[in-house]
Amino acid sequence: MSEIPYKIYLSENEMPKSWHNIRAVMKEPHDPMLHPGTLKPCVTEDLLPIFCKSLAEQELNFTDEFIEIPEEIRSFYKMYRPSPLVRAYCLEKELGTPAKIYYKFEGTNTSGSHKLNSAAAQVYYAKKEGITSLTTETGAGQWGTALAMACVYFGVGLTVYMVKVSAEQKPYRRYAMETYGAKVVASPSDTTESGRKILAENPGTGGSLGCAISEAIETAIKTQNCKYVLGSVLDHVLLHQSVIGLETKAACDMYGIRPDVIIGCAGGGSNLGGLISPFMADKIRGKNDISFIAAEPASCPSLTRGTYAYDFGDTCRTTPLMRMYTVGSSYIPSPNHAGGLRFHGMSPILSKLYHDGYISAKSYVQSDVFAAATLFARSEGTLPAPESAHAIKAAIDEAVKCRETGEEKTILFGLTGTGYFDLTAYNSYNAGTMTDSVPSDEDLEKGFAGLPKV
Amino acid sequence: MSEIPYKIYLSENEMPKSWHNIRAVMKEPHDPMLHPGTLKPCVTEDLLPIFCKSLAEQELNFTDEFIEIPEEIRSFYKMYRPSPLVRAYCLEKELGTPAKIYYKFEGTNTSGSHKLNSAAAQVYYAKKEGITSLTTETGAGQWGTALAMACVYFGVGLTVYMVKVSAEQKPYRRYAMETYGAKVVASPSDTTESGRKILAENPGTGGSLGCAISEAIETAIKTQNCKYVLGSVLDHVLLHQSVIGLETKAACDMYGIRPDVIIGCAGGGSNLGGLISPFMADKIRGKNDISFIAAEPASCPSLTRGTYAYDFGDTCRTTPLMRMYTVGSSYIPSPNHAGGLRFHGMSPILSKLYHDGYISAKSYVQSDVFAAATLFARSEGTLPAPESAHAIKAAIDEAVKCRETGEEKTILFGLTGTGYFDLTAYNSYNAGTMTDSVPSDEDLEKGFAGLPKV
Repeated sequence: MSEIPYKIYLSENEMPKSWHNIRAVMKEPHDPMLHPGTLKPCVTEDLLPIFCKSLAEQELNFTDEFIEIPEEIRSFYKMYRPSPLVRAYCLEKELGTPAKIYYKFEGTNTSGSHKLNSAAAQVYYAKKEGITSLTTETGAGQWGTALAMACVYFGVGLTVYMVKVSAEQKPYRRYAMETYGAKVVASPSDTTESGRKILAENPGTGGSLGCAISEAIETAIKTQNCKYVLGSVLDHVLLHQSVIGLETKAACDMYGIRPDVIIGCAGGGSNLGGLISPFMADKIRGKNDISFIAAEPASCPSLTRGTYAYDFGDTCRTTPLMRMYTVGSSYIPSPNHAGGLRFHGMSPILSKLYHDGYISAKSYVQSDVFAAATLFARSEGTLPAPESAHAIKAAIDEAVKCRETGEEKTILFGLTGTGYFDLTAYNSYNAGTMTDSVPSDEDLEKGFAGLPKV
Repeated sequence: MSEIPYKIYLSENEMPKSWHNIRAVMKEPHDPMLHPGTLKPCVTEDLLPIFCKSLAEQELNFTDEFIEIPEEIRSFYKMYRPSPLVRAYCLEKELGTPAKIYYKFEGTNTSGSHKLNSAAAQVYYAKKEGITSLTTETGAGQWGTALAMACVYFGVGLTVYMVKVSAEQKPYRRYAMETYGAKVVASPSDTTESGRKILAENPGTGGSLGCAISEAIETAIKTQNCKYVLGSVLDHVLLHQSVIGLETKAACDMYGIRPDVIIGCAGGGSNLGGLISPFMADKIRGKNDISFIAAEPASCPSLTRGTYAYDFGDTCRTTPLMRMYTVGSSYIPSPNHAGGLRFHGMSPILSKLYHDGYISAKSYVQSDVFAAATLFARSEGTLPAPESAHAIKAAIDEAVKCRETGEEKTILFGLTGTGYFDLTAYNSYNAGTMTDSVPSDEDLEKGFAGLPKV
């Protein structure tokens, strides 16, 4: 086997031609999405008021393990993919660990994260079905920026409801979305009924992904030829994100790299779900014994402290019900800096895999996460996104364990994006003014009490 | 020849092992650097109060065409290089041009630009010679960030004098430098004699690279075991940046790409000089007939409206004298958003090549540059730095000419960096509040009148 370079790039020809659908491999499917009115399992038609048809079909496809990536999306992917699989030689040296550390780096595009992988797909299908405009929500802004890039490329209009606290922390993200032609509205806003309702109940709120989703869905329903798109949580988003895992696995296979541990940060779960998809398939088939770890914020601990229940995807309780690990759709997490992880629930696919013992989870307070981020930046060069830094923290912990035990484990994590728009947060960490917030048991009980009765 | 992919990456083994020194190929050397006191050509010893020895020697090396890149620097390069040579398929389509457009993209590292190539080299040599801290200036912040990254990697302290107007426009850059452990001072400051003098004369000034250089040099001289490093203009910086051109040429040779036009933005000249170095050698040797174009801001037009004369590198007239195209070291350009191009002079190497007719130059007002930047971002995905966008503007103009004439020219330009820290400028462009500023002939005459008598 040849020596492993710092960065492994697949050639254009080696890029995946199909996405990987882990649901076709899972021994038991996750519980079905339920219609919020009838409480019956959703069929494609139930999803059409919100989603375009191709995506609704992908959402409910539990049978095909591989789904072809249309040529137009593959062309778009070639603008910024393949992304590198990086050997973290410098971090290994800094930690003095016998572990081998790799990360799949998804931050080399202007959206700064993996979100572009699903944005391209969703906008392509919308355009193909004659949709002229889209609405969405964004937390930290990565998803909104990604969607703006895809919309301007395919020629589709876009309105982004941006979580207010993020819009204030990250004006640059707004300017970026506007440069790509999107309209950006801070959420909760007074432009929708949902927004006005939330503002009336919580006048001082900084908003949340749940609130912003409600506003975006309402606008999509009320606007002609307009659909809603979502950047995480849903099965079809994880499907698109499998391009991360497929590229990673191809690169690993090329160099004989066999991960012992695979780590991803987890908010809604799209990155982790995409990264592990083909590796998990092998695990389910008994072909590997990889430990999969979800790294989440202690301020929004859906896996580590949540409950496995049917819940809405949004605060205003308008979405279909999904069975997932959740801290409750009425729970509004504290304004920590990893905006992309401030979602009350977790992907139904990942929730099921976690419930069945295929994945473990850890949670971290943000000051520990920024310490890991800073160590990583100083040794590997790249300034990570706060979200991604949760995975870094978990990877460093694993590598330090190896230093203590002498194990030469191969640790692989997803570096979902860069922190170039998160420097206010870094400044707060550098200045020593960052505070950590962890919900009390009472806070969580309140969230659980608001769960729908199913 | 195989089909050309969107992105051409060299393998690690194909990365350059030596830098290219264009001075060894030029038919006539540029005029020597002069000691500001004696007005005699500088020898190595003259440079040692400011620069470390290896760099002083490289600065005065007119004879060796190739200079080996030390192993430690090559390791550092592997963290973020090779950079991709990108075929701008989407931009070509958007413009409807028969031209083939390529760009060498140097913005994939956290400093966001090519500056890291020389930062790594300069810090390595300083460390090797026992230097414990460095000082420098930064305009837009790319150089300062690059240097902070290299300093923390090699374990050397750093103080950055950041042009005040940039520090105000781009606080994120400051936070980034601080995250990498650097101390950042807005210039002009009251911490140096030079700064206090400039402030006394121009109380409201937003500063300039020239001012910041004066402060950084003063601090380096007054601090033990401390040297000054510079991110552009000087011959040794262009030498390090030749890694850009060498990689580009290797990628072109691999796919049989023969550029007709090569374009780079030009402030101090390090990117353009590095990009064209090996191609220019071939041109001088009669092996190609490439048109080289320097793209500069109309607000600081050293090539297009400057004079070819001996001048200082800094406002306070402390550096050696260099013969270069200059608008005068006393000229303080208007605060346009391409901070990295706000330097009064131009690299002596490029000045000589321009003087001898090997390079042509064009200047652009910033609103035209941002229009080109926005078009590029929307078609190619990547949000460019305002500096780089000068080259984009020139490349688009060339490609549009091809559309009119039907010529299938191959146009190659340097995309030096990303605009992620420049979104205030994009916002000003989007909001229609951006103004253009071009110096009057009288403004320039005043700058010329201040030139030293040599």
